[in-house]
Amino acid sequence: MIIIGELINASRKAIKAAIETQDAAAIQQVATDQADAGADYIDVNAGIFVGKEPEYLRWLVETVQQVTDKPCAIDSPDPKAIQAALEAHKGAPPMINSISLEAERYDNLMPIVANTDMKVIALCMSDAGMPETVDDRMKIAEKLVGGLTENGVSVENIYVDPLVQPLSVNKDFGVQFIDSIEAIHNNWPGIHSACGLSNISYGLPGRKQINRAFMTMAIAKGLDGAIVNPLDKGMIAAITIAEALSGRDNFCMSYLKAFRAGAIA
Amino acid sequence: MIIIGELINASRKAIKAAIETQDAAAIQQVATDQADAGADYIDVNAGIFVGKEPEYLRWLVETVQQVTDKPCAIDSPDPKAIQAALEAHKGAPPMINSISLEAERYDNLMPIVANTDMKVIALCMSDAGMPETVDDRMKIAEKLVGGLTENGVSVENIYVDPLVQPLSVNKDFGVQFIDSIEAIHNNWPGIHSACGLSNISYGLPGRKQINRAFMTMAIAKGLDGAIVNPLDKGMIAAITIAEALSGRDNFCMSYLKAFRAGAIA
Repeated sequence: MIIIGELINASRKAIKAAIETQDAAAIQQVATDQADAGADYIDVNAGIFVGKEPEYLRWLVETVQQVTDKPCAIDSPDPKAIQAALEAHKGAPPMINSISLEAERYDNLMPIVANTDMKVIALCMSDAGMPETVDDRMKIAEKLVGGLTENGVSVENIYVDPLVQPLSVNKDFGVQFIDSIEAIHNNWPGIHSACGLSNISYGLPGRKQINRAFMTMAIAKGLDGAIVNPLDKGMIAAITIAEALSGRDNFCMSYLKAFRAGAIA
Repeated sequence: MIIIGELINASRKAIKAAIETQDAAAIQQVATDQADAGADYIDVNAGIFVGKEPEYLRWLVETVQQVTDKPCAIDSPDPKAIQAALEAHKGAPPMINSISLEAERYDNLMPIVANTDMKVIALCMSDAGMPETVDDRMKIAEKLVGGLTENGVSVENIYVDPLVQPLSVNKDFGVQFIDSIEAIHNNWPGIHSACGLSNISYGLPGRKQINRAFMTMAIAKGLDGAIVNPLDKGMIAAITIAEALSGRDNFCMSYLKAFRAGAIA
């Protein structure tokens, strides 16, 4: 299971302010906090800064990489911003978050990821709108995975995001999503999945409890990547327990270590 | 999802004492507590009383049914005890907990459930020992479900229990169990599953957290019956959330009702 730390996102007020004032220390604190909490990738997003996104995204990559050797997840649909960030990125290959089947995004991002070793999130979204059923998602995933592999991206570097929709809108949106996770892993052995799940609880009270349970259910169906706040201890505990119950934790060693550190109860 | 309340079991010290002293009020309190907490069946077990089990099991059924109209789950492998309990049982058909593929138990219980409307738990255990893999369980389930349906028990009245084994013994015992749940529901449309899950956490610390997460994962795979303590609020909350996320809760009404009653957080 890989954890993509989601906190360095300019849509958050403190991050926006730190970028505007070029407060490297503030960004670096959030980066090291996430890495220490177990993040495998540090997501960087400067999408709200129209015109300045390439400059700011490059600065975020440089700033983060000064304090951690975790690779970044470069979170942008803009090829200029991604290129600027990639020029600055060092060490292990970064992740691109994300390509989709929307024509402009697909055409912009495919040349960037083609024939590289970068990991790429493939979001199940098209110009036809948001998918609702397993079938909607698999039709998009087939075109995305097909396009990526034809362009020299290995199946092992693809993380499909089936796109969570709120349970409050339709009682079947939870089960359609987790069944999509299962279908993706059954369809392409060696492929991965990764997503943010918090949208499932939009419009409902008790969101944290719902989000943790939904993460547990998605892991039961094969989910092996999560875009989350690694500082959310309840969520990380839920992931640790679900991983052990899914046969991914030899002798329950990670679970027992977390329990002894007080991270479970 | 049906909830089978497990608390009236003579292996519990307070229940043993209440049975020995024929303290009907004590038994009735546990019965109404469980019914009020949402139990659909009240399990009754007097298995520790060798020689007196038929008399005591009949008394438990009479005592419970004086205060609740929930049917009982008659929890015994002894045909004499089951017959005594059945003679006393009134109202909606009870559940038999449980038949298995062990030859003596199978031969004793099949004549009791044959051509009836009773619900029956079919435990995936045989004289060859405890099953470990999905394949082990499905081989037993095929013989059990085949035998029951040939003897006039409808598929809809069968609750297969794949038999949980501890994660501390083998890291794959969790996933083998939940994949068995999925295989059972895929193999026989209309069938049900029901089990106690707490054995999963045997030998590990933090058992409650593990048990709740495992219940959530099993529901994601199709589990629709649980033998639990209905007074365990954390477990019931986990079931309520997982049911909503599995598409079983129209407009999240049960979830919202539980949340407003303070039963979720």
